[in-house]
Amino acid sequence: MTPETGPGRGYSTISFLSDYGHDDEFVGVVHSVIASIAPHVRVVDVTHGIAPCDVRAGGLALARAAQYLLPGVVVAVVDPGVGTARRPVAIEVGDGASVLVGPDNGLLAPAVALVGGASRAVELANPEFRLDVQPELGSTFDGRDVFAPAAAHLCCGVRIDALGPAVDPATLTPGMLPVSTREGDDLVAEVLWIDRFGNCQLNLDPAELDELAPAGAPLQVAAGEDLRTAERVGAYAEVSPGRVGLITDSSGLVSLAMPKRSTAEDLGLHEGAEVRLTAAADRRSDGASGTATPVGLGRRPAGPARHGSGGAS
Amino acid sequence: MTPETGPGRGYSTISFLSDYGHDDEFVGVVHSVIASIAPHVRVVDVTHGIAPCDVRAGGLALARAAQYLLPGVVVAVVDPGVGTARRPVAIEVGDGASVLVGPDNGLLAPAVALVGGASRAVELANPEFRLDVQPELGSTFDGRDVFAPAAAHLCCGVRIDALGPAVDPATLTPGMLPVSTREGDDLVAEVLWIDRFGNCQLNLDPAELDELAPAGAPLQVAAGEDLRTAERVGAYAEVSPGRVGLITDSSGLVSLAMPKRSTAEDLGLHEGAEVRLTAAADRRSDGASGTATPVGLGRRPAGPARHGSGGAS
Amino acid sequence: MTPETGPGRGYSTISFLSDYGHDDEFVGVVHSVIASIAPHVRVVDVTHGIAPCDVRAGGLALARAAQYLLPGVVVAVVDPGVGTARRPVAIEVGDGASVLVGPDNGLLAPAVALVGGASRAVELANPEFRLDVQPELGSTFDGRDVFAPAAAHLCCGVRIDALGPAVDPATLTPGMLPVSTREGDDLVAEVLWIDRFGNCQLNLDPAELDELAPAGAPLQVAAGEDLRTAERVGAYAEVSPGRVGLITDSSGLVSLAMPKRSTAEDLGLHEGAEVRLTAAADRRSDGASGTATPVGLGRRPAGPARHGSGGAS
Repeated sequence: MTPETGPGRGYSTISFLSDYGHDDEFVGVVHSVIASIAPHVRVVDVTHGIAPCDVRAGGLALARAAQYLLPGVVVAVVDPGVGTARRPVAIEVGDGASVLVGPDNGLLAPAVALVGGASRAVELANPEFRLDVQPELGSTFDGRDVFAPAAAHLCCGVRIDALGPAVDPATLTPGMLPVSTREGDDLVAEVLWIDRFGNCQLNLDPAELDELAPAGAPLQVAAGEDLRTAERVGAYAEVSPGRVGLITDSSGLVSLAMPKRSTAEDLGLHEGAEVRLTAAADRRSDGASGTATPVGLGRRPAGPARHGSGGAS
Repeated sequence: MTPETGPGRGYSTISFLSDYGHDDEFVGVVHSVIASIAPHVRVVDVTHGIAPCDVRAGGLALARAAQYLLPGVVVAVVDPGVGTARRPVAIEVGDGASVLVGPDNGLLAPAVALVGGASRAVELANPEFRLDVQPELGSTFDGRDVFAPAAAHLCCGVRIDALGPAVDPATLTPGMLPVSTREGDDLVAEVLWIDRFGNCQLNLDPAELDELAPAGAPLQVAAGEDLRTAERVGAYAEVSPGRVGLITDSSGLVSLAMPKRSTAEDLGLHEGAEVRLTAAADRRSDGASGTATPVGLGRRPAGPARHGSGGAS
Repeated sequence: MTPETGPGRGYSTISFLSDYGHDDEFVGVVHSVIASIAPHVRVVDVTHGIAPCDVRAGGLALARAAQYLLPGVVVAVVDPGVGTARRPVAIEVGDGASVLVGPDNGLLAPAVALVGGASRAVELANPEFRLDVQPELGSTFDGRDVFAPAAAHLCCGVRIDALGPAVDPATLTPGMLPVSTREGDDLVAEVLWIDRFGNCQLNLDPAELDELAPAGAPLQVAAGEDLRTAERVGAYAEVSPGRVGLITDSSGLVSLAMPKRSTAEDLGLHEGAEVRLTAAADRRSDGASGTATPVGLGRRPAGPARHGSGGAS
């Protein structure tokens, strides 16, 4: 972490994620700022459809995309604390292969963890690499004024340690993800993400279902008041009419899915909702938890920091 | 169709259409995959706003855009059968000027027909040109794992016949479009597309209106319970208050339109809805069809395969 | 304004704003048309989320973005009069540093005014620089057929005066913006813009609040039936529970804001709605205007043409 001298390596790509949406000019202004500082850079919009201020959803989307992104700089902005003392940061990963830029509020943490953790981090405090904003403008658009300029300057060969003072990576806000649990016969999971098609990604990997019921055996899914029969399938179109599909999705996690319809709507699920899975053999007449049974806590794939229950970052 | 040897011609543009929307990271991940394989390629997003799983709407949008797209590769993904036996294909048109890549479910068919039909096609079976996906990930995102890599490799000079075994173009799933019909005095049409402004494109070309009523004569439009007076205009703003405009739209088809308001909302129309047009002379007091009259079946512009009634692909 | 000879300077960027949305292929077709004529050009999408036909909202978004856009060509299309006699124009600003292309309906006016006014303008009448559209297609998509080709040809070095006859800049449709007023103790403002987060930008600059109440003093905000206590803050997250924040936003204007929730929804505000601000000292029990008091008409930052009350362009 000794500051070296000489220019930085520079980058040619910025991957950009935010909760800015497409109704306003926010995304276009950030693109313009980047191109004005670093015209050689390709900007890839990961998504700007994160629900407003939903830091957890933004962190999960970035983590799902992370392994596919081009090496280079990532700018991620879901930032309800903009203008407050929360730190704007740049986090180097992969010995400098990539740098993630954004607010230190947990948004970047899941992706950082997935790619092996931070090798170093700085606070974006150096005004030289912020946009030269007129003093009469407010501090409500750090994507434009702080994050995009920092990312663009990194691309132009500015060294990360020139952007501001070093931050101990151990002090960065972690991203909290819920773990699944066993309660009696129930595997208790949580909806991490509902995609555009209404598929509901759970915090379960397929091995946890293998432990719950033998391959091919039906399962019960309890969501809210609803109790449905579920079946494991390899494709959306394979789900039998009236059943809920359990599919290993493109992230390697278990999703609830139904063909050509929104499972989320059908089951009344939202992100963060609890879903209980049980082997269909011990069919229950109500949604109550089963009797005491040895608990086998679900294994989870390697990933970002977690805590023991359903709280989100 | 004799396989040649040597490298393919390569392409510099990928036009990309899907039903992925912008709320999730799907589009950004596909862009990233393309850029990682073929950094020289320009990706033009045609639209990602196709309604989820609406293959017909996707096919129509691609057909409307087709003549304006840059020569090169087209990737189109509206794919409710992802992961099933439906074939992922690449279809060469214009003697190799362009290649369309996507699922063989009728999505590509209208555009292929409009540009003169397929000169050859292959199934994207060669794992060498798929993304090297970890075995623990599911088969739910062929845009990322199959279509984008195939398109990018084509751009890099991989020959189409290297992507997999030849497919007889005659066996490709056709795109079905409804034809208009005459029932007595009624010209019976269908809403093909409702655009953001609420304009309703019909499966009618203006010559069919010419046959129905002399230029300048008003018409009756029956949509659902509604019976309205319509008039032919050259611009949205020319529609008289309280009337429905019949305008030749930018695709050369007849659209129902009203100035600065949504015709679809006003008339309660949805894509696929039936619309009946009659010369205003035989004004009816209800929505029933007129008395028997010689039928002149509407002519239709050259286009993709059709069948005789209102079914969609 | 003497026509020079020789090629134009050319441009490398087109910034593109419209009300086309992302549900249809409009934006993708325009990108394709630009790239087919001017493959060297970078297109930056400012936004396409302007509400359909909302010329005022489009003009305001373009003005907010203007100072951040790259020098070059701007294409802006919010065009309810497409196909009518309203003029399609190109407006040169900054002695040719940039050219704004779009309909002459007031959409471009606020941005033109902000960057110092038009140095010259032309009507896009020369068919040589329109898309060579088949005669059977309607005139409903000038973005594709007129504006994008003109912009692309400008980028390729076509001189602005080759696009059509000169237009006297004084005859261009102005952009009308409402001014705030004082009525007794009330400062009467209007919502200019509601962003994705529900923040409500007012036509007020912070100095007008300074005149109304001393720094730190609370204010009353009357919106519709609602009367709330407001406080001036520097960041969204600093607003006290139950209060409405008054924040200097990233455009330098006053916005109403609440942390992590939509102020617009909470107060029932829409763009164009009236908002009244009063020093909290003279708390009123109803929404009626206060007694007669010396009026200090709010100062306004330099900007586009305005008229005296709440009408929009």
